[in-house]
Amino acid sequence: MGREDKIISWVCRLTVITAFFLVGFIIGWFARPTSVNHGHATKSFLRDFLDEMRAENIKHHLRKFTRLPHLAGTQQNLELAERIGAEWMEFGLDSVELVPYDVLLSYPNKTSPNYISIVDHQGNEIFSTSLAEPIPEGYEDVTDIVPPYSAFSAKGQPEDELVYVNYGRTEDFFKLERELGINCTGKIVIARYGKIFRGNKVKNAMLAGAKGIVLFSDPADYCAEGVEPYPKGWNLPGGGAQRGNVLNLNGAGDPLTPGYPAKEYTYRSSLEDAVGLPRIPVHPIGYHDAVHLLQHMGGPLPPDNWKGALNVSYRLGPGFMDGFNQNKVRMNIHTNNQVTRIYNVIGWIRGAVEPDRYIILGGHRDAWVFGGIDPVSGAAVVHENVRAAGKLMKKGWRPRRTLVFASWDAEEFGLQGSTEWAEENARVLQERAVAYINADSAIEGMYTLRVDCTPSLHTLVYDITKKVSSPEEGEEGMSLYESWHKRDNWTERDAPWINKLGSGSDFEAYFIRLGIASGRARYTKNRKTERYSSYPVYHSVYETYEIVERFYDPSFRRLEAVARVRGGLIFSLADSPILPLDCTEYASSVNKYANSIHQLAMKHPAAMQQYGISFDSLFSAVENFTVAARDFHQRLDQIDTSNALDVRMVNDQLMYLERAFIDPLGLPGRPFYRHIIFAPSSHNKYAGESFPGIYDALFDIENVADPQKAWDEVKRQISIAAFTVNAAARTLKPVFG
Amino acid sequence: MGREDKIISWVCRLTVITAFFLVGFIIGWFARPTSVNHGHATKSFLRDFLDEMRAENIKHHLRKFTRLPHLAGTQQNLELAERIGAEWMEFGLDSVELVPYDVLLSYPNKTSPNYISIVDHQGNEIFSTSLAEPIPEGYEDVTDIVPPYSAFSAKGQPEDELVYVNYGRTEDFFKLERELGINCTGKIVIARYGKIFRGNKVKNAMLAGAKGIVLFSDPADYCAEGVEPYPKGWNLPGGGAQRGNVLNLNGAGDPLTPGYPAKEYTYRSSLEDAVGLPRIPVHPIGYHDAVHLLQHMGGPLPPDNWKGALNVSYRLGPGFMDGFNQNKVRMNIHTNNQVTRIYNVIGWIRGAVEPDRYIILGGHRDAWVFGGIDPVSGAAVVHENVRAAGKLMKKGWRPRRTLVFASWDAEEFGLQGSTEWAEENARVLQERAVAYINADSAIEGMYTLRVDCTPSLHTLVYDITKKVSSPEEGEEGMSLYESWHKRDNWTERDAPWINKLGSGSDFEAYFIRLGIASGRARYTKNRKTERYSSYPVYHSVYETYEIVERFYDPSFRRLEAVARVRGGLIFSLADSPILPLDCTEYASSVNKYANSIHQLAMKHPAAMQQYGISFDSLFSAVENFTVAARDFHQRLDQIDTSNALDVRMVNDQLMYLERAFIDPLGLPGRPFYRHIIFAPSSHNKYAGESFPGIYDALFDIENVADPQKAWDEVKRQISIAAFTVNAAARTLKPVFG
Repeated sequence: MGREDKIISWVCRLTVITAFFLVGFIIGWFARPTSVNHGHATKSFLRDFLDEMRAENIKHHLRKFTRLPHLAGTQQNLELAERIGAEWMEFGLDSVELVPYDVLLSYPNKTSPNYISIVDHQGNEIFSTSLAEPIPEGYEDVTDIVPPYSAFSAKGQPEDELVYVNYGRTEDFFKLERELGINCTGKIVIARYGKIFRGNKVKNAMLAGAKGIVLFSDPADYCAEGVEPYPKGWNLPGGGAQRGNVLNLNGAGDPLTPGYPAKEYTYRSSLEDAVGLPRIPVHPIGYHDAVHLLQHMGGPLPPDNWKGALNVSYRLGPGFMDGFNQNKVRMNIHTNNQVTRIYNVIGWIRGAVEPDRYIILGGHRDAWVFGGIDPVSGAAVVHENVRAAGKLMKKGWRPRRTLVFASWDAEEFGLQGSTEWAEENARVLQERAVAYINADSAIEGMYTLRVDCTPSLHTLVYDITKKVSSPEEGEEGMSLYESWHKRDNWTERDAPWINKLGSGSDFEAYFIRLGIASGRARYTKNRKTERYSSYPVYHSVYETYEIVERFYDPSFRRLEAVARVRGGLIFSLADSPILPLDCTEYASSVNKYANSIHQLAMKHPAAMQQYGISFDSLFSAVENFTVAARDFHQRLDQIDTSNALDVRMVNDQLMYLERAFIDPLGLPGRPFYRHIIFAPSSHNKYAGESFPGIYDALFDIENVADPQKAWDEVKRQISIAAFTVNAAARTLKPVFG
Repeated sequence: MGREDKIISWVCRLTVITAFFLVGFIIGWFARPTSVNHGHATKSFLRDFLDEMRAENIKHHLRKFTRLPHLAGTQQNLELAERIGAEWMEFGLDSVELVPYDVLLSYPNKTSPNYISIVDHQGNEIFSTSLAEPIPEGYEDVTDIVPPYSAFSAKGQPEDELVYVNYGRTEDFFKLERELGINCTGKIVIARYGKIFRGNKVKNAMLAGAKGIVLFSDPADYCAEGVEPYPKGWNLPGGGAQRGNVLNLNGAGDPLTPGYPAKEYTYRSSLEDAVGLPRIPVHPIGYHDAVHLLQHMGGPLPPDNWKGALNVSYRLGPGFMDGFNQNKVRMNIHTNNQVTRIYNVIGWIRGAVEPDRYIILGGHRDAWVFGGIDPVSGAAVVHENVRAAGKLMKKGWRPRRTLVFASWDAEEFGLQGSTEWAEENARVLQERAVAYINADSAIEGMYTLRVDCTPSLHTLVYDITKKVSSPEEGEEGMSLYESWHKRDNWTERDAPWINKLGSGSDFEAYFIRLGIASGRARYTKNRKTERYSSYPVYHSVYETYEIVERFYDPSFRRLEAVARVRGGLIFSLADSPILPLDCTEYASSVNKYANSIHQLAMKHPAAMQQYGISFDSLFSAVENFTVAARDFHQRLDQIDTSNALDVRMVNDQLMYLERAFIDPLGLPGRPFYRHIIFAPSSHNKYAGESFPGIYDALFDIENVADPQKAWDEVKRQISIAAFTVNAAARTLKPVFG
């Protein structure tokens, strides 16, 4: 080979080598991933997670957690907390802690029982209500069953004529005072349970000047037709009565430490300055006892629609019936308020990619007695959710975001455990919480699913329920979504009906105070045909394991379906790279609410004109929000999901959307209700009101003393609503400029 | 070559080629960056940025912006806004917008001037104060110079004896009422300017029952020794007077729309319900006029330390001097409140990496007259900051985070432009704002640097001032840090002194309401030897371009140094991958404040014992915070800065630390002052108070009617402070569990 050939040959070799080097370099360059690989295929794990939750396990958890009463503040409930915490650790959570608070609770005086009596003109008690409910079979040896009482009732022994106030609603008192001309001042009133939260009944009675209030369960409200009383069926027996707190906390949590967690060092106000305590005695009775009191009433006949189902001639009072008109009713109430230690159980699974983003699943553990439905049907489901998550972790899964599981204490005493934890962690939650899913009672009926949630969760709820099977017999192969859809369709759209969030459970502080997207799901009755209130044995001793096992869900497949819905929600929220929140659903809901509050105002066209009331600014804000939401989701479709920071930025916008509806100044007179779109109704804590500021300003406006001032307040509330919706729109716009 | 040889040869070649391929692959793999390359070497650009800001440009901007008056709400000030906006676009900002609000302003009645007169027993005005200041040379042809007035004064013509109340401080009124036995009820009071914010003087006068208040500038407070009055020197001439608003807004912004931006659709309260308006007439006068009023006073001699520098025999009044005792003082005030449109100029530079993180540089543009010092010395510096940033962008730089530049309107009327913008953008700012640097007057003295900032900015301030040269003659080669250090050392540590933030400028809503880390820097006098208040010509017509050019900063190097400090702060905050905020400095400041408030309480050892007051919970919280801050920074040192999400997470913790001190419930009676560590003093808006809740609860506690209640409030405030510091500690802990 010549020299030139050699050179050529070497050049060739070099070229080939260089070429291969370059090819290698280029392949190496592009082969290397530039964003974090999350290392798990979300979809298959979601399926695994859903399938992991099983009816038989939930049955087992329910059985285990309902053997003994576990009232808030008792040793039993602490022991249950410890047991749950220990099992969560065994299931595989990264950490579990018991978080104590010292809050104001309320218990009957053990030596001086509460009761109501009828006293004759000589002061003799000629009748007294029962001191306890008949104990259900199998539980005869259980001690520490707290008798029916109204927690936080004032002490006292008022004695007077009785006035029947129907459900004790605002409109009932209006009717009594304005139409029937009956004054409750200085009287004892008797109201039937149902329709609204009992605390609102007590507040209304106080406002009407009553000096005591008796609450009773009328069969019209607590018995389903054709159903036997427990234990033969699931109706409330005549000796059963509904326990419950009668506070008007408006979201304050512990009445002595509003706004701050009830830690050891926390300042406590005096009982006089406490938030929401009733100033009058309150006591609940069953319908067997109620008959006796009602029989002794005088006065005119009540309106037809006020008559319950009891077989006595209802009268309104005051003025006892002929022959009895020397008799009076006496309340004997000795309930004590006391600062008591409670315990939340908080469990954590650290997020693999964004540990500083939290998805919370929380439900309470404390029960009035056994809590067969409330709360253990929910707590058993949480337990199964935790178990399934732990099982997945053992298979190598870890969620993208952090999962927080909470077993709240003292929910029954005013959502105290959950509210105190929210107060203690407010800053961190405000910055880091993506969503809160509530896990109170998982079943209250046998008909279909019920979901109450923030509008941005609608789409996810539908997606998840499509992945869960119907638990109903004869619906094999049908999805829960289809089953639910055919049973309960929205009136204005072709999709299963979803309710607004009200209150009365532990999501309150998270949603309405802190502005964290929230939702709840449970199995429910047919809301169109079953007209009784709640479920019949609600808060009675008859809420046992057996009532679920025999009547509500013998196969435990309904609870399994609820577990899969709740579990699927937290799984998707924790694991989807882009948060599964839908702003356009929020926009369409807000639009609906704006139209509806406008309709309400338009019932006063003359005043609207006279005082220059316009909803234009609100409608224009809704339009801005609608456009911003639509544009946001369009941009979201274009996003480069391999850019970790870009994903984080849009997720932050999604997460903080709910926060945008929070007004730090709160609603008038309700500083801890700060959500401008949703609040518990001022007349019924259980119900959600949309645009509550405007609604309350309009309420009964035709009867106010100073209409100018009242309509000015309407104007102000419209302006606040318009600003807030505009502000929310602003959070969805491109982050710059 | 044999067959085997050929095979061997090919194997060799293949091996070599494969080896080169692999080497290429490996090099390619590792050569590719796995995190975003920000594409700029931060350090060199910081140097470029600092060097880009130049004295001669600032001089030019100052000259340009001080030719005409630009009072808030006037056409001139709108034109200035448009001009500034246009120049910012030319400088290279990504976008600039004018943001209008309709807020309550206050102007003198042009046809009915304000003045104070002495009237004799027949009602004749025997003396009247001047209606305007003598116009400085060169400005004789300028129209629209607003005469000295107290903005938002009530209208009225009260007439009575005069009572001298010294500075009108709380302690001055205490002394009058408690020691000197002089009652101000129904009198007109006269107070000298200085020591505290004028709005507090007016509030104190109202609380004392006065029916009017005259404010005057005493040479003791507004003339430096050995300095000539303007134009020969920089002292206040005898005909000069201090304009200024006399509101007590406590952070509300527009008095008619507290909590919400004053947009067209916003509900406005009535004037009766407006926030912070004085209910009595108020008027400012110069010392030439003041002499006449003071000469006519009777009553006892004032305490020695109440005597100003005027060459008249001060008396306290009431009771006019012998021979004059039929004379009275009459105020003639016709100032009008009116809703007026104002304009903020907002400019943006989009962040390259984290566009949803904002660093704000804001200062006001509106001036009482020419604004030579207040605010244009500051606005000229902002202009130079913007110009320099634009210049760098043309060189290819773009900050990691978004920069926001603001030229606020109506600061002089109660920080209104800045507060309304904060209200409108509250949600977005709360979630995205990293820091706010204020840019009011850049010079108020000729001695050294003055910095007021949140503790977490201390370290950055020191770092930046080390990179800036001293502007002082004879200090060539010395850093600003060294120059400042030798002139004004901290008493308790070896570093230049940094002050707490008070209020009285536009950072208020950002820092004290929203909890955004804030700071301000300016050139100042020697605070230890120069005892006059503010700077002598403050808010007079004599605040001209010339006073800066002739006396305060002839070389404009002091303003240049301030520009570099402010610019360096925003540059570092916007561009450093890890936010340059120091939590341990915060911890050590909080520790200092806790000790100091404890010392204050310990002045009442008997009461502390009697009412069971303990600071243990606060000290324990401070300890938790200190440990959390130290641990946080230790973890920060270990962080993998190539992981974009990990960096974002720690930066979020740093950013949100200041937010953690915000209590949504606000301070007692001051709902828009929500920072638990810092608030403007309740007795002097200009001064910052640490642990203001506890401080106010302790204030004058030895004289309260109900000590039990008062000490209970101290307890409550300690508990709130302890909770808040604990909550802040919690935000610095590892984000999980």
